[in-house]
Amino acid sequence: MRIKIKVPATSANLGPGFDTLGLALKLYNETVIENSSYFSISVKGEGSEKPHVKTNNTFVNIFYDIYKELTGKKDNFRFSFFNSIPFSRGLGSSSSVIVGAIAAAYKMACFKADRDNIVNRALIYETHPDNIAPAVYGGFISAVVENGKVIKIKKELPDTLKAVVVVPNVAMSTKHSRSILPRQYKIKDAVFNLSHAALLSAAFVGEQWDMLKIASKDVMHENIRMQALSELFDVRRIAYEKDALLSTLSGSGSSFLNLVYDKHSDSLLNALKLSFPKFKVVKLGLDNDGFTILES
Amino acid sequence: MRIKIKVPATSANLGPGFDTLGLALKLYNETVIENSSYFSISVKGEGSEKPHVKTNNTFVNIFYDIYKELTGKKDNFRFSFFNSIPFSRGLGSSSSVIVGAIAAAYKMACFKADRDNIVNRALIYETHPDNIAPAVYGGFISAVVENGKVIKIKKELPDTLKAVVVVPNVAMSTKHSRSILPRQYKIKDAVFNLSHAALLSAAFVGEQWDMLKIASKDVMHENIRMQALSELFDVRRIAYEKDALLSTLSGSGSSFLNLVYDKHSDSLLNALKLSFPKFKVVKLGLDNDGFTILES
Repeated sequence: MRIKIKVPATSANLGPGFDTLGLALKLYNETVIENSSYFSISVKGEGSEKPHVKTNNTFVNIFYDIYKELTGKKDNFRFSFFNSIPFSRGLGSSSSVIVGAIAAAYKMACFKADRDNIVNRALIYETHPDNIAPAVYGGFISAVVENGKVIKIKKELPDTLKAVVVVPNVAMSTKHSRSILPRQYKIKDAVFNLSHAALLSAAFVGEQWDMLKIASKDVMHENIRMQALSELFDVRRIAYEKDALLSTLSGSGSSFLNLVYDKHSDSLLNALKLSFPKFKVVKLGLDNDGFTILES
Repeated sequence: MRIKIKVPATSANLGPGFDTLGLALKLYNETVIENSSYFSISVKGEGSEKPHVKTNNTFVNIFYDIYKELTGKKDNFRFSFFNSIPFSRGLGSSSSVIVGAIAAAYKMACFKADRDNIVNRALIYETHPDNIAPAVYGGFISAVVENGKVIKIKKELPDTLKAVVVVPNVAMSTKHSRSILPRQYKIKDAVFNLSHAALLSAAFVGEQWDMLKIASKDVMHENIRMQALSELFDVRRIAYEKDALLSTLSGSGSSFLNLVYDKHSDSLLNALKLSFPKFKVVKLGLDNDGFTILES
């Protein structure tokens, strides 16, 4: 058997929706897996320059964990990675790897790659649902974790919305980025975030795009994390000057997600490219499918 | 001029949506106001037994503040109150009074009772939008306060949903009920509430009623407040046994709000009446209009 699995990049938090809200982007890691007489890995694109991606590959490790559990065997496969999601930039590269590995293992073991099952298994490797859930289902996701299971509401996003993503030339470690946050929040701040996260969720599900800007305000994490890369404050300012509907740190950074009506997307793209020549700025559609598996 | 203003009862918080989420109930305070050669107040229904409701009436005080501001005059009116919303039971009696007084003053002063204006003026008397906003607009409301203004998304609620409200025979003071809450929350608890409030908002706007039960879980305030009246834990347990879709403390209590499909509402009503003979248990429709003014 030979399969190609594609898993989308994701942008989590979306401002106030800490560990809760996320959406999927039309930017993919693709992996071809085929039965083979010997084990091999090839990596193209993001990560191809990092030796450990070949010698200790997370996708391969998780894939074999699941595959052996399902089949009792350790067969040989040829893995060919074509990675487009940048590492450690807050675009869900890890979630894409986790979700892809689990779903591929189910498929190669001739089990059904049921999305609700995949997302719950993924939760063992990444305890927060805000990247893994949109990687699995696509669209906008509002999620909670209940008894080790992801409970979510999904909203498909229209073509009239585009993402303009700013990818800085420096990484941010999620672990470090989380360690600098307060351990406790005043009730006022907790209520600020919960009220905005609730409004943001209502705005996505109710397609009230002009509400996104106010609803996406956060006081729990963004500004603290953005201190590490102060240009991000300028990204947000310029994005809103150029008609962005929402402009938030993507996950724990370093990327910045801007949502914009398609008709304004090129002007926003060009303005951000001009202002941040050292950063990568890309325009992306929004993915509504989550992972897909092609068999050939 | 003679007007009759009707303002609905409201149920706020809805579990995790502390100071944020609320909905309106088909239970009303009605006030008839008419120009008169002398000032008078009559009170029927809730509050009629309390002397201060006549001698220092909040509705009348706010009404005259606004009326004088708009007209520069202190005219005489006859106020006839027909109150159905119980006092200090977490059903938005205060908000109903505030909203009704402001809207009536605009009307009697021959100004437009614009809802966005009324809700922002009401915010001066009650700083949280979760009761005043549904009292003004009706329906389910997810709201934030931005620069002294209420920003909200409203969702109309269908006839197929009913509220079965349990009204205990003891009051709870909002002020006391708020004073016993922690001043700070662990990040884990803040994230719990924000993720559930976001899911709850998505469930209401997306009409995913079967999500309400999980989405309405709270760790910030309900259980602490319910300690004051431990029967409320039994109310919740029995309500969920009897097909309630959502069962939460109404505002800061003491009432409990249960949402249920119409087809199960009588069985829920009867079960709760039987279990809590000392409490009032009522079945109510959901209001989608907010305050209404009839001129005659």
